[in-house]
Amino acid sequence: MYIEIDFSSDEAYYQQLCNQIIQGIATSQFSDGDVLPSVRELAEEIGINMHTVNKAYSVLKQEGFVKVDRRKGAVVSVDSNKQHALDMIRKEMQPLLAESYCRNLSREDIKGMVDEIYDAYEGCEDERK
Amino acid sequence: MYIEIDFSSDEAYYQQLCNQIIQGIATSQFSDGDVLPSVRELAEEIGINMHTVNKAYSVLKQEGFVKVDRRKGAVVSVDSNKQHALDMIRKEMQPLLAESYCRNLSREDIKGMVDEIYDAYEGCEDERK
Repeated sequence: MYIEIDFSSDEAYYQQLCNQIIQGIATSQFSDGDVLPSVRELAEEIGINMHTVNKAYSVLKQEGFVKVDRRKGAVVSVDSNKQHALDMIRKEMQPLLAESYCRNLSREDIKGMVDEIYDAYEGCEDERK
Repeated sequence: MYIEIDFSSDEAYYQQLCNQIIQGIATSQFSDGDVLPSVRELAEEIGINMHTVNKAYSVLKQEGFVKVDRRKGAVVSVDSNKQHALDMIRKEMQPLLAESYCRNLSREDIKGMVDEIYDAYEGCEDERK
């Protein structure tokens, strides 16, 4: 998987790394059970500190995207509890929708965006089949 | 306006402050032209550092939610460029929708959430009329 950190972005590196790995799961580049690169490997490959990669893996573990296997390392394992997922996403969605409401975007604008992005993910999944 | 910082949260204080002010605009507690409390006042009221309030106001200015008037201070002024708004929201929506797609939430789950949250904001607006 190709991971690229934007060193000029305001967003923390560990957060960018988390987002890109989640993006990788959404676009079917990673599936449940896949082993992620080791902390050392990934740190060297993308040119960031090992602590940063470690932090990203801990957050992904905490958010229910990976499990840590003592022998294999970080393994993709998405938490499938739907109510839990809904609660987490609602909490993150709230400030974003406050922002879009203030900016006068309609609910249709947002739903259009949801369709567009979901279509792209479904396209990726079909390609892998 | 009632602002409350969650000191036990992982989210940076300035980010919480930005989110709550944006939330305040969405729920019609603030409208265009309203003057926000001074940096000093707000810092004392909620018990955080003045630098943190300053950072929140700078970010809100940069994101097009406030303007700084030399005499009045920070004034609510929402940037109404729709294309700009769509671009910003799409960028922030992308990682969130990657997350919800991985967690097996359907597009209908997300659209339902959009309706629910928009209904609440519209309710606030009606109340103020």
